[in-house]
Amino acid sequence: MSTDSPTDAEAACFEAGIKFGSLYHQFAGTPVSPDSAPSLETAMEESIENQPHCTDVTVTVRTDELEAVLAESTADYTELTGRFLEVEIVVDYEGCEVVTRMEMEDGYPLMRLESVRD
Amino acid sequence: MSTDSPTDAEAACFEAGIKFGSLYHQFAGTPVSPDSAPSLETAMEESIENQPHCTDVTVTVRTDELEAVLAESTADYTELTGRFLEVEIVVDYEGCEVVTRMEMEDGYPLMRLESVRD
Amino acid sequence: MSTDSPTDAEAACFEAGIKFGSLYHQFAGTPVSPDSAPSLETAMEESIENQPHCTDVTVTVRTDELEAVLAESTADYTELTGRFLEVEIVVDYEGCEVVTRMEMEDGYPLMRLESVRD
Amino acid sequence: MSTDSPTDAEAACFEAGIKFGSLYHQFAGTPVSPDSAPSLETAMEESIENQPHCTDVTVTVRTDELEAVLAESTADYTELTGRFLEVEIVVDYEGCEVVTRMEMEDGYPLMRLESVRD
Repeated sequence: MSTDSPTDAEAACFEAGIKFGSLYHQFAGTPVSPDSAPSLETAMEESIENQPHCTDVTVTVRTDELEAVLAESTADYTELTGRFLEVEIVVDYEGCEVVTRMEMEDGYPLMRLESVRD
Repeated sequence: MSTDSPTDAEAACFEAGIKFGSLYHQFAGTPVSPDSAPSLETAMEESIENQPHCTDVTVTVRTDELEAVLAESTADYTELTGRFLEVEIVVDYEGCEVVTRMEMEDGYPLMRLESVRD
Repeated sequence: MSTDSPTDAEAACFEAGIKFGSLYHQFAGTPVSPDSAPSLETAMEESIENQPHCTDVTVTVRTDELEAVLAESTADYTELTGRFLEVEIVVDYEGCEVVTRMEMEDGYPLMRLESVRD
Repeated sequence: MSTDSPTDAEAACFEAGIKFGSLYHQFAGTPVSPDSAPSLETAMEESIENQPHCTDVTVTVRTDELEAVLAESTADYTELTGRFLEVEIVVDYEGCEVVTRMEMEDGYPLMRLESVRD
């Protein structure tokens, strides 16, 4: 067992995690409908791209899932949660590129590291 | 002193307050820059307009104030707070129209009822 | 049709709505489990009671509902949404007391005015 | 340049970042006063400790800074932002322990990796 100061790759992964947690917990709960989904996608992308070392954010609101939920409801909107989201975030920290993704898996939104490139 | 069941005007004012609290506390803290302000304005408007009885939301991010803050900073973005916002929300509840507004006053963002029209 | 400046009762209802929207959209999405529910209840109550004219906030996280959801899940926590909440908020504005409540009704969390007392 | 599948240490750093982004963007904007700070600290700690691989969260609301801000204000509460926070988060992922910290530095709240222990 040893303690080392973090590598650039580790710092890049930490930065990528910050972006994911930020995106999710800033926007979870936002009222969303099929009509308002596109503007929310753009705002989520552009706001998180402001954060340091964040080169690209791609957000897709799954309007098929949204419409399926609303079809069983008397409401015409719902609140944003992970089940309606697909997200890819790319971070570049000191030349190390990290690609991360959030997708549904077994009914849960999972955030995972896709690749780490030194 | 008497307790009455709420009037339509009172219910309309309650609904208008809900929209204001929702808008503010959903989006406060969002990373924002002059470049990303327009997409955030649109997303805030369209998401809150989903809520019941909400007929119109107009959000202006005060980019002049944003630029003044960033000019004194080493960062190129900041977090959304009330000092950067001007908001008007119109609610129609059972034919009663309520107009509400948030603006800075003496250094504080104040939310107030502008008019109640039966 | 006439426009009047708002009555104290209308302003009190507006203030009560602000508190409800704030509480809901500040805390929706918070990770919550039966063990952490009590500290979240207290924090929600005490933070919203800071807001102007807010005399009392009572939050109950429905741990029965929480446990029912978690029993069908592989996770041991979930995210706070309206289905897990019962809330009462009391506002006093210029001597006018408004009591408001959020409860599940037909599967939806409804916020409503309970009483308005001049 | 090479792409490798992430190491456990990198995954641990990613997880730690998620917790930080979650904590910050879930709770930024919460109304807070010196009196309500302790319950908010506890709720922040216990809610984020629910997240996977998160072994310990310590939140200190800097009440000295809070009181300094309120002394210059007509309000008796403000909104939670990074300037009022000191946070330590410990993550254990597959036996790899990561310690992370947020503190003010040159007027900015900086999140950083403190140690990564395989």
